[in-house]
Amino acid sequence: MTPGKTSTAAASRRRFIQAGAGGVAAIGAAALPATASAQVQAQPPTFDEQHDVVVCGSGCAGLTTALFSRWQGNRVVVLEKAGSIGGTTNKAAFWYWVPNNEAMRKARIADPKPDFLRYVARLSSPQTYDPNHPRLGLGAWEYEMCEAIYDSASPAVELLASRGALTYRHVAGVPDYFAELPEDKAPKGRVLVPAQAAPSMADGGRVAIGQLSAKARQDGVPIRTGMRVQRVLRSPEGHAIGVEAVDDTGATVRIGARKAVVFATGGFTHDPELRKHFLNGPVFGGCAALSNEGDFIRAAAPLGVQLRNMNYAWMCPVSLDKALARDGSMSGMFSVAGDSMLFVNKYGRRTVNEKLQYNELAQTFFHWDGARAEYPDLVRISIWDQRSQDHSASAEYGRLIVPPGTDDRHVLKAASLQELARAIDERLARHAGATGVRLAPDFLPNLRAAIERFNGFARTGKDLDFGRGDRAVEQLFNGDVKQEPNRRNPTLWPISARGPYYAALVAAGTLDTKGGPKTDSHGRVLDTADKPIAGLYGVGNCVASASGRAYWAGGATLGPMIAFAYRAALDIGKPQGGA
Amino acid sequence: MTPGKTSTAAASRRRFIQAGAGGVAAIGAAALPATASAQVQAQPPTFDEQHDVVVCGSGCAGLTTALFSRWQGNRVVVLEKAGSIGGTTNKAAFWYWVPNNEAMRKARIADPKPDFLRYVARLSSPQTYDPNHPRLGLGAWEYEMCEAIYDSASPAVELLASRGALTYRHVAGVPDYFAELPEDKAPKGRVLVPAQAAPSMADGGRVAIGQLSAKARQDGVPIRTGMRVQRVLRSPEGHAIGVEAVDDTGATVRIGARKAVVFATGGFTHDPELRKHFLNGPVFGGCAALSNEGDFIRAAAPLGVQLRNMNYAWMCPVSLDKALARDGSMSGMFSVAGDSMLFVNKYGRRTVNEKLQYNELAQTFFHWDGARAEYPDLVRISIWDQRSQDHSASAEYGRLIVPPGTDDRHVLKAASLQELARAIDERLARHAGATGVRLAPDFLPNLRAAIERFNGFARTGKDLDFGRGDRAVEQLFNGDVKQEPNRRNPTLWPISARGPYYAALVAAGTLDTKGGPKTDSHGRVLDTADKPIAGLYGVGNCVASASGRAYWAGGATLGPMIAFAYRAALDIGKPQGGA
Repeated sequence: MTPGKTSTAAASRRRFIQAGAGGVAAIGAAALPATASAQVQAQPPTFDEQHDVVVCGSGCAGLTTALFSRWQGNRVVVLEKAGSIGGTTNKAAFWYWVPNNEAMRKARIADPKPDFLRYVARLSSPQTYDPNHPRLGLGAWEYEMCEAIYDSASPAVELLASRGALTYRHVAGVPDYFAELPEDKAPKGRVLVPAQAAPSMADGGRVAIGQLSAKARQDGVPIRTGMRVQRVLRSPEGHAIGVEAVDDTGATVRIGARKAVVFATGGFTHDPELRKHFLNGPVFGGCAALSNEGDFIRAAAPLGVQLRNMNYAWMCPVSLDKALARDGSMSGMFSVAGDSMLFVNKYGRRTVNEKLQYNELAQTFFHWDGARAEYPDLVRISIWDQRSQDHSASAEYGRLIVPPGTDDRHVLKAASLQELARAIDERLARHAGATGVRLAPDFLPNLRAAIERFNGFARTGKDLDFGRGDRAVEQLFNGDVKQEPNRRNPTLWPISARGPYYAALVAAGTLDTKGGPKTDSHGRVLDTADKPIAGLYGVGNCVASASGRAYWAGGATLGPMIAFAYRAALDIGKPQGGA
Repeated sequence: MTPGKTSTAAASRRRFIQAGAGGVAAIGAAALPATASAQVQAQPPTFDEQHDVVVCGSGCAGLTTALFSRWQGNRVVVLEKAGSIGGTTNKAAFWYWVPNNEAMRKARIADPKPDFLRYVARLSSPQTYDPNHPRLGLGAWEYEMCEAIYDSASPAVELLASRGALTYRHVAGVPDYFAELPEDKAPKGRVLVPAQAAPSMADGGRVAIGQLSAKARQDGVPIRTGMRVQRVLRSPEGHAIGVEAVDDTGATVRIGARKAVVFATGGFTHDPELRKHFLNGPVFGGCAALSNEGDFIRAAAPLGVQLRNMNYAWMCPVSLDKALARDGSMSGMFSVAGDSMLFVNKYGRRTVNEKLQYNELAQTFFHWDGARAEYPDLVRISIWDQRSQDHSASAEYGRLIVPPGTDDRHVLKAASLQELARAIDERLARHAGATGVRLAPDFLPNLRAAIERFNGFARTGKDLDFGRGDRAVEQLFNGDVKQEPNRRNPTLWPISARGPYYAALVAAGTLDTKGGPKTDSHGRVLDTADKPIAGLYGVGNCVASASGRAYWAGGATLGPMIAFAYRAALDIGKPQGGA
């Protein structure tokens, strides 16, 4: 791929450009209904500006698609709805999971394609997984998408690295999230992280966006913020030929795309109605960018697309206080900190392994009690003692145990468990309109019993109820704990018999959702007959993920996203590609 | 409402009728894209036949909408995809849940609207329920829909009864499914059943379809079978003006609707792809009519509708063998028969109250183990002894314990538990490609321990683990059990220490799904701006239910359905209604 001549002169937003031969033909469109066909041009065939490729969204998926397309010689623009660039990526650690990556190959870590496919198939469809089935029990679509990840993630990230758009370092020690499964033949080695990320890697997303966006500007890709894309404009033949957006002055702008419109706008984490009507349980927001409001679901509604994988999300526990406040700075709780720490529910009962991998832990909040008609675990209370406060506090990775001087409004503190219970119930009362949760009358005695049982497990290092700390991923995310000689389990330590005690409310959230219009493995958005809608592409969390409910490993969002960005750009670049 | 002049002369399917003034205007439609806008007329404005109202689907929702519309003076046709009429309704017991019904009023059973709304709000959105909130914590749409049910169910069923279309008897003794909740101020009395249904009521659906369809024919509503409706035809203004169907000869037929097209085509129980990508857990089919394949989801895709409540279904446990065989005669397991009977999972562990109300019981099969990455309860094994076989067998309500001479291919029998385990694992092996489930190595010792613990509970009558039999609804559906003097709990009896033993495989299924395009409370299908699509209506399981995950009571499907059929017909009949 050779970059086209760099063009930094952005066309004036108000310069009207007559559509070319491939543009908009006049039809009797004035008679077309506003409700259903407004996406077909209802105005004279004019655009305010035109590009080859219009990319909506400036997170990882958008910027990498823009760069890959630019390097194919296209004139590309990136439209970002928010006032600043980077979307959810800004908030990520930006691990990216790349099977059979260059660093693995150099280190002679084998990661053959059939093994990779077995691992992802086993996790994404455990009920149909069959190692002897030609597609391992996956559907044809899912299999094709997983193959595409394996085939294209590594070439894509190498191209980004070789051009200085996204350089990386290999995080050889990080295990996959189900590293212990026999299907995982390369349990470590697939994870990369931006080269300049801090040792903790928590700032990886900001680093990546900085490097990608600098490269985009250097290579002549304008990135416009404050551009709210509202609809896809189509030719009479139904090809996507541009978008209509509202800019930050409130003006409507029509932007033509000679070759392709690419949506990379994120999921629907911040649309409560879509969450309620699609996700497989009651989610209280999440840590996706606040601009992730399901824009592509709405823009695609009149296009005859197929929504897929709408029931699942990339999940993470979150601070209930922060989620309900729509705190844009909130991080998902990737790491549940503390050893002398446990979770209980409104009944004071411990009902979960607190160190379960975050995607899996979040799902446990949805447990439904069909006799009481309630979600008993919808809000859990994390409780810890002074020891964990002193040794496990951190401002990174969404931890609830935070150091002095940081925002701790979500933390409750009391001298005794009794006082703590009172404070917890007061805080719950504040949120009851959203959760329906208050403490049960027997919370306190049950809590005392739960602590006693937990402390017994902690003394032996063996959690007989939930197996806390038994798996590699649980130790990976354990965070700092006080060093103890000869301890058997770094995730467990008895909770002190004396206060002070601390508490915070936890609920299920999303990093972002993973459902949306179905694309093929070239990122082409498909219609109800599984045919590509010419000129329309989708990449990232705004389109359907083939992963089902699975979170294969750290970076299983971003690695595949880069693979599909690369494949979409290649497809747009083909003679027959695009509109 | 006065019936129009009866017309039994169905227009010839091949007679071409020129669209009238309100019909199809010619536009340059040949240029419109097949992928996205085929629903806008791409052919000359001709129909093979025309009616005022075209109803798709001949179950309860379709037939009642057709009758109500006919009684408004309209010419109505019903198009049924299957070879016979009645859809899923045929298989229902046809309880219909009608708040504040005439029989209650006569019996002076108070059922005021505010109390009704509190009960449904409490169940449909427990996390936001608030008795002091103006909408009780429901969304505006959900509240409006629930009000409509209360307001219109009773007038609708009285009209059907008074015209002899659907006569009923009051089933005064049946409790709501959460009758013990303080919000339920009318725990009994809301359930009606067709007057001529058998004492067991299991044949209510066939009785209802017989009476409704006879009335439809008598009143001049032709019902056409073998008519597969594939798309909605629209005017240039976007109004629904007819449908395109394929008849049983394979010919394409275009049927005009001067006033309204009504979809009443059922849910997507038998579309495995839609189930996988929308429902909140892995469902193995269900007992909806086999023709319930999500037709309206597909037909509506190009219309710019909003899919809602896609994550939930009217659920029921089913026989795994029958579900995987797509046995069209299968009934949901409304009643889990037997007292000396228990369920265990692949590990031999008892993990559920077997007598939970069916919708709630089915949900428990979706429990996800995020450490093992599996659904441990995806298939459960019902195990019973000779005593339950002798005293609890029944061919009704989907029970697994069936009498001699009936289809018992789903039943495994063995002299000992050890032999039974072998037979269970053989049967599981047959289905492993769909379920991934085989017995764990320690199944047998765990099963013996589970039985011992269960038998202890049975002797005291108190299930300390899961509270089996504690609630009214659990006793309602207990079925026949051997009479025992002084027993405390009719749902529990020790399992015999001696064989033979019996077993059958159980999984989660649906009666039908409850998601689809959003309508307003007049049955009008809404576009993405919440504006009605002129002339397009939806009633029943093909459109979004406002019930969320809740199954309020027996008949909570059919009662509301009749209310919305009535409201849709009234709206179509309005001067400004319809297309």
